[in-house]
Amino acid sequence: MAERVIDCLTRRGLSLATAESLTGGLLAAALTAVPGASKVFRGGVVSYQTPMKQLLAGVPEEVLAAYGPVSERTAVELALGVRRITGADWALSATGVAGPDQQDCHPVGEVWIGVAGPGVGTATPQFCGHRFDFTGSRELIRAQSVSAALDALAAALGL
Amino acid sequence: MAERVIDCLTRRGLSLATAESLTGGLLAAALTAVPGASKVFRGGVVSYQTPMKQLLAGVPEEVLAAYGPVSERTAVELALGVRRITGADWALSATGVAGPDQQDCHPVGEVWIGVAGPGVGTATPQFCGHRFDFTGSRELIRAQSVSAALDALAAALGL
Repeated sequence: MAERVIDCLTRRGLSLATAESLTGGLLAAALTAVPGASKVFRGGVVSYQTPMKQLLAGVPEEVLAAYGPVSERTAVELALGVRRITGADWALSATGVAGPDQQDCHPVGEVWIGVAGPGVGTATPQFCGHRFDFTGSRELIRAQSVSAALDALAAALGL
Repeated sequence: MAERVIDCLTRRGLSLATAESLTGGLLAAALTAVPGASKVFRGGVVSYQTPMKQLLAGVPEEVLAAYGPVSERTAVELALGVRRITGADWALSATGVAGPDQQDCHPVGEVWIGVAGPGVGTATPQFCGHRFDFTGSRELIRAQSVSAALDALAAALGL
Protein backbone atom coordinates (compact mmCIF):
# COMPACT_ATOMS: atom_id res chain seq x y z
CA MET A 1 0.00 0.00 0.00
CA ALA A 2 2.94 2.37 0.68
CA GLU A 3 4.02 1.81 -2.92
CA ARG A 4 0.54 2.57 -4.29
CA VAL A 5 0.28 5.76 -2.25
CA ILE A 6 3.77 6.97 -3.26
CA ASP A 7 3.03 6.12 -6.88
CA CYS A 8 -0.27 8.02 -6.84
CA LEU A 9 1.24 11.11 -5.17
CA THR A 10 4.19 11.05 -7.60
CA ARG A 11 1.86 10.98 -10.60
CA ARG A 12 -0.21 13.83 -9.16
CA GLY A 13 2.87 15.89 -8.14
CA LEU A 14 1.81 16.01 -4.48
CA SER A 15 3.88 15.76 -1.30
CA LEU A 16 3.41 13.99 2.03
CA ALA A 17 4.50 14.30 5.67
CA THR A 18 3.91 12.21 8.81
CA ALA A 19 3.54 12.78 12.56
CA GLU A 20 3.80 9.60 14.60
CA SER A 21 3.42 8.63 18.19
CA LEU A 22 2.80 4.92 18.88
CA THR A 23 4.17 3.83 15.48
CA GLY A 24 7.43 5.55 16.46
CA GLY A 25 8.83 5.96 12.94
CA LEU A 26 7.41 2.81 11.35
CA LEU A 27 5.00 4.76 9.15
CA ALA A 28 7.76 6.97 7.74
CA ALA A 29 9.94 3.86 7.39
CA ALA A 30 7.23 2.07 5.37
CA LEU A 31 6.92 5.05 3.03
CA THR A 32 10.68 5.54 2.62
CA ALA A 33 11.18 1.82 1.93
CA VAL A 34 9.80 2.62 -1.54
CA PRO A 35 12.61 3.66 -3.93
CA GLY A 36 11.91 7.17 -5.22
CA ALA A 37 9.92 8.11 -2.09
CA SER A 38 12.08 11.23 -1.76
CA LYS A 39 10.15 12.82 -4.65
CA VAL A 40 6.99 12.74 -2.53
CA PHE A 41 7.87 12.27 1.13
CA ARG A 42 9.13 15.51 2.65
CA GLY A 43 9.73 14.17 6.12
CA GLY A 44 8.04 13.71 9.44
CA VAL A 45 8.25 13.87 13.18
CA VAL A 46 8.18 11.15 15.79
CA SER A 47 6.44 13.02 18.59
CA TYR A 48 6.74 10.19 21.07
CA GLN A 49 6.59 11.81 24.51
CA THR A 50 3.52 14.02 24.99
CA PRO A 51 5.35 17.41 25.11
CA MET A 52 6.96 16.53 21.74
CA LYS A 53 3.50 16.66 20.13
CA GLN A 54 3.53 20.38 20.81
CA LEU A 55 7.25 20.93 20.27
CA LEU A 56 7.76 18.94 17.05
CA ALA A 57 4.26 18.89 15.52
CA GLY A 58 2.72 22.12 16.78
CA VAL A 59 -0.27 20.56 18.55
CA PRO A 60 -1.67 23.34 20.77
CA GLU A 61 -0.96 22.81 24.48
CA GLU A 62 -4.66 23.42 25.25
CA VAL A 63 -5.64 20.55 22.93
CA LEU A 64 -3.23 18.17 24.68
CA ALA A 65 -4.49 19.33 28.08
CA ALA A 66 -8.18 19.05 27.17
CA TYR A 67 -8.24 15.93 24.98
CA GLY A 68 -5.03 14.09 25.91
CA PRO A 69 -2.48 12.57 23.52
CA VAL A 70 -4.73 9.61 22.62
CA SER A 71 -7.74 11.29 20.99
CA GLU A 72 -9.27 12.13 17.63
CA ARG A 73 -8.57 15.82 18.15
CA THR A 74 -4.87 15.24 18.83
CA ALA A 75 -4.58 12.91 15.82
CA VAL A 76 -6.11 15.58 13.60
CA GLU A 77 -3.92 18.34 15.09
CA LEU A 78 -0.82 16.20 14.58
CA ALA A 79 -1.66 15.82 10.89
CA LEU A 80 -2.59 19.49 10.45
CA GLY A 81 0.50 20.57 12.38
CA VAL A 82 3.08 18.56 10.46
CA ARG A 83 1.38 19.53 7.19
CA ARG A 84 1.73 23.21 8.13
CA ILE A 85 5.36 22.86 9.33
CA THR A 86 6.60 20.90 6.32
CA GLY A 87 4.38 22.57 3.72
CA ALA A 88 3.32 19.15 2.45
CA ASP A 89 0.07 18.68 0.51
CA TRP A 90 -0.99 15.67 2.57
CA ALA A 91 -0.18 14.57 6.09
CA LEU A 92 -0.81 11.41 8.08
CA SER A 93 -0.68 10.90 11.82
CA ALA A 94 -0.98 8.03 14.29
CA THR A 95 -1.43 8.20 18.05
CA GLY A 96 -2.57 5.50 20.44
CA VAL A 97 -1.58 2.83 22.90
CA ALA A 98 0.82 0.11 21.68
CA GLY A 99 1.09 -1.52 25.09
CA PRO A 100 2.02 -3.49 27.06
CA ASP A 101 0.36 -1.11 29.56
CA GLN A 102 -2.77 1.00 29.13
CA GLN A 103 -2.26 4.76 29.11
CA ASP A 104 -4.41 7.29 31.02
CA CYS A 105 -7.42 4.92 30.99
CA HIS A 106 -7.09 4.27 27.24
CA PRO A 107 -6.91 0.53 26.55
CA VAL A 108 -4.03 -1.13 24.71
CA GLY A 109 -4.92 -1.12 21.00
CA GLU A 110 -6.88 2.15 20.94
CA VAL A 111 -5.43 4.00 17.96
CA TRP A 112 -6.38 7.24 16.22
CA ILE A 113 -5.30 8.01 12.67
CA GLY A 114 -5.40 11.57 11.36
CA VAL A 115 -5.41 12.64 7.71
CA ALA A 116 -5.05 16.20 6.45
CA GLY A 117 -4.99 17.41 2.89
CA PRO A 118 -5.73 20.30 0.56
CA GLY A 119 -9.27 21.68 0.73
CA VAL A 120 -11.42 21.39 -2.36
CA GLY A 121 -12.27 24.85 -3.62
CA THR A 122 -11.06 26.44 -0.37
CA ALA A 123 -7.76 27.35 1.26
CA THR A 124 -8.86 25.60 4.47
CA PRO A 125 -7.40 22.09 4.64
CA GLN A 126 -9.64 19.06 4.79
CA PHE A 127 -9.06 16.67 7.68
CA CYS A 128 -10.52 13.64 9.38
CA GLY A 129 -9.80 11.20 12.20
CA HIS A 130 -10.44 7.46 12.42
CA ARG A 131 -10.58 5.26 15.49
CA PHE A 132 -9.34 1.68 15.57
CA ASP A 133 -9.34 -0.91 18.32
CA PHE A 134 -6.57 -3.36 17.56
CA THR A 135 -5.62 -6.49 19.43
CA GLY A 136 -2.38 -8.42 19.67
CA SER A 137 1.19 -7.73 20.67
CA ARG A 138 2.86 -4.32 20.77
CA GLU A 139 4.54 -5.20 17.47
CA LEU A 140 1.23 -6.21 15.86
CA ILE A 141 -0.61 -3.12 17.09
CA ARG A 142 2.11 -0.90 15.63
CA ALA A 143 2.06 -2.76 12.30
CA GLN A 144 -1.75 -2.60 12.07
CA SER A 145 -1.59 1.13 12.80
CA VAL A 146 0.79 1.67 9.88
CA SER A 147 -1.54 -0.25 7.55
CA ALA A 148 -4.58 1.64 8.80
CA ALA A 149 -2.84 4.98 8.24
CA LEU A 150 -1.84 4.07 4.67
CA ASP A 151 -5.38 2.79 3.97
CA ALA A 152 -6.85 6.04 5.31
CA LEU A 153 -4.64 8.10 3.00
CA ALA A 154 -5.44 5.83 0.06
CA ALA A 155 -9.16 6.34 0.72
CA ALA A 156 -8.71 10.13 0.98
CA LEU A 157 -6.88 10.04 -2.38
CA GLY A 158 -9.73 8.00 -3.89
CA LEU A 159 -7.60 4.89 -4.47
CA MET B 1 21.29 -3.34 20.84
CA ALA B 2 18.27 -0.97 21.01
CA GLU B 3 17.23 -2.75 24.20
CA ARG B 4 20.70 -2.40 25.75
CA VAL B 5 20.84 1.30 24.93
CA ILE B 6 17.32 1.98 26.26
CA ASP B 7 18.10 -0.02 29.39
CA CYS B 8 21.34 1.88 30.02
CA LEU B 9 19.73 5.30 29.50
CA THR B 10 16.80 4.32 31.76
CA ARG B 11 19.15 3.31 34.57
CA ARG B 12 21.12 6.54 34.20
CA GLY B 13 17.98 8.73 33.92
CA LEU B 14 19.01 10.12 30.53
CA SER B 15 16.92 10.91 27.44
CA LEU B 16 17.43 10.38 23.71
CA ALA B 17 16.31 11.88 20.40
CA THR B 18 16.94 11.03 16.73
CA ALA B 19 17.28 12.84 13.40
CA GLU B 20 17.12 10.57 10.40
CA SER B 21 17.50 10.90 6.68
CA LEU B 22 18.22 7.66 4.77
CA THR B 23 16.90 5.43 7.58
CA GLY B 24 13.58 7.28 7.23
CA GLY B 25 12.20 6.43 10.67
CA LEU B 26 13.72 2.95 11.09
CA LEU B 27 16.09 4.11 13.84
CA ALA B 28 13.27 5.62 15.92
CA ALA B 29 11.18 2.51 15.17
CA ALA B 30 13.95 0.21 16.46
CA LEU B 31 14.19 2.23 19.68
CA THR B 32 10.41 2.43 20.21
CA ALA B 33 10.05 -1.31 19.60
CA VAL B 34 11.42 -1.71 23.13
CA PRO B 35 8.60 -1.64 25.72
CA GLY B 36 9.18 1.25 28.14
CA ALA B 37 11.12 3.26 25.53
CA SER B 38 8.87 6.23 26.28
CA LYS B 39 10.77 6.79 29.55
CA VAL B 40 13.91 7.55 27.54
CA PHE B 41 13.04 8.32 23.93
CA ARG B 42 11.67 11.85 23.61
CA GLY B 43 11.09 11.77 19.88
CA GLY B 44 12.77 12.52 16.62
CA VAL B 45 12.55 13.95 13.16
CA VAL B 46 12.68 12.29 9.77
CA SER B 47 14.34 15.06 7.79
CA TYR B 48 14.12 13.23 4.49
CA GLN B 49 14.19 15.94 1.82
CA THR B 50 17.19 18.27 2.14
CA PRO B 51 15.27 21.43 3.18
CA MET B 52 13.70 19.41 6.03
CA LYS B 53 17.16 19.08 7.60
CA GLN B 54 17.01 22.81 8.24
CA LEU B 55 13.29 23.03 8.92
CA LEU B 56 12.87 20.05 11.26
CA ALA B 57 16.36 19.57 12.69
CA GLY B 58 17.80 23.10 12.62
CA VAL B 59 20.82 22.32 10.43
CA PRO B 60 22.12 25.74 9.32
CA GLU B 61 21.41 26.51 5.65
CA GLU B 62 25.09 27.44 5.18
CA VAL B 63 26.17 23.98 6.36
CA LEU B 64 23.83 22.28 3.89
CA ALA B 65 25.03 24.57 1.09
CA ALA B 66 28.74 24.10 1.88
CA TYR B 67 28.90 20.42 2.86
CA GLY B 68 25.72 18.93 1.35
CA PRO B 69 23.25 16.60 3.05
CA VAL B 70 25.58 13.57 2.90
CA SER B 71 28.55 14.69 5.01
CA GLU B 72 30.07 14.36 8.46
CA ARG B 73 29.26 17.99 9.23
CA THR B 74 25.57 17.57 8.39
CA ALA B 75 25.37 14.34 10.41
CA VAL B 76 26.85 16.14 13.42
CA GLU B 77 24.57 19.18 12.96
CA LEU B 78 21.52 16.88 12.69
CA ALA B 79 22.40 15.29 16.03
CA LEU B 80 23.21 18.62 17.71
CA GLY B 81 20.09 20.21 16.24
CA VAL B 82 17.58 17.58 17.35
CA ARG B 83 19.26 17.41 20.76
CA ARG B 84 18.80 21.19 21.14
CA ILE B 85 15.18 21.17 19.87
CA THR B 86 14.00 18.26 22.03
CA GLY B 87 16.18 18.99 25.05
CA ALA B 88 17.36 15.37 25.08
CA ASP B 89 20.63 14.37 26.76
CA TRP B 90 21.77 12.29 23.81
CA ALA B 91 20.99 12.42 20.10
CA LEU B 92 21.70 10.16 17.17
CA SER B 93 21.56 10.97 13.46
CA ALA B 94 21.93 9.13 10.16
CA THR B 95 22.36 10.59 6.69
CA GLY B 96 23.56 8.90 3.53
CA VAL B 97 22.65 7.19 0.29
CA ALA B 98 20.33 4.16 0.50
CA GLY B 99 20.12 3.79 -3.27
CA PRO B 100 19.22 2.57 -5.78
CA ASP B 101 20.80 5.71 -7.32
CA GLN B 102 23.86 7.65 -6.18
CA GLN B 103 23.23 11.18 -4.88
CA ASP B 104 25.28 14.26 -5.79
CA CYS B 105 28.36 12.11 -6.57
CA HIS B 106 28.09 10.20 -3.26
CA PRO B 107 28.02 6.45 -3.89
CA VAL B 108 25.22 4.18 -2.75
CA GLY B 109 26.10 2.95 0.75
CA GLU B 110 27.98 6.07 1.94
CA VAL B 111 26.48 6.72 5.36
CA TRP B 112 27.34 9.21 8.12
CA ILE B 113 26.26 8.68 11.71
CA GLY B 114 26.26 11.58 14.16
CA VAL B 115 26.26 11.34 17.95
CA ALA B 116 25.80 14.25 20.35
CA GLY B 117 25.72 14.17 24.12
CA PRO B 118 26.40 16.10 27.28
CA GLY B 119 29.90 17.56 27.63
CA VAL B 120 32.05 16.30 30.45
CA GLY B 121 32.79 19.16 32.85
CA THR B 122 31.53 21.72 30.32
CA ALA B 123 28.19 23.04 29.07
CA THR B 124 29.34 22.52 25.46
CA PRO B 125 27.98 19.23 24.09
CA GLN B 126 30.31 16.49 22.93
CA PHE B 127 29.78 15.22 19.39
CA CYS B 128 31.32 13.01 16.76
CA GLY B 129 30.67 11.67 13.26
CA HIS B 130 31.41 8.24 11.79
CA ARG B 131 31.60 7.23 8.14
CA PHE B 132 30.47 3.85 6.84
CA ASP B 133 30.54 2.36 3.37
CA PHE B 134 27.85 -0.28 3.22
CA THR B 135 26.99 -2.61 0.39
CA GLY B 136 23.81 -4.46 -0.51
CA SER B 137 20.21 -3.56 -1.24
CA ARG B 138 18.43 -0.37 -0.16
CA GLU B 139 16.81 -2.38 2.63
CA LEU B 140 20.14 -3.78 3.82
CA ILE B 141 21.89 -0.40 3.73
CA ARG B 142 19.10 1.10 5.84
CA ALA B 143 19.23 -1.79 8.33
CA GLN B 144 23.03 -1.59 8.62
CA SER B 145 22.76 2.15 9.21
CA VAL B 146 20.37 1.60 12.13
CA SER B 147 22.77 -0.95 13.67
CA ALA B 148 25.75 1.36 13.16
CA ALA B 149 23.91 4.25 14.83
CA LEU B 150 22.96 2.14 17.86
CA ASP B 151 26.53 0.81 18.09
CA ALA B 152 27.91 4.35 17.95
CA LEU B 153 25.64 5.44 20.82
CA ALA B 154 26.53 2.33 22.82
CA ALA B 155 30.22 3.14 22.38
CA ALA B 156 29.66 6.76 23.44
CA LEU B 157 27.85 5.49 26.55
CA GLY B 158 30.76 3.15 27.29
CA LEU B 159 28.73 -0.03 26.77
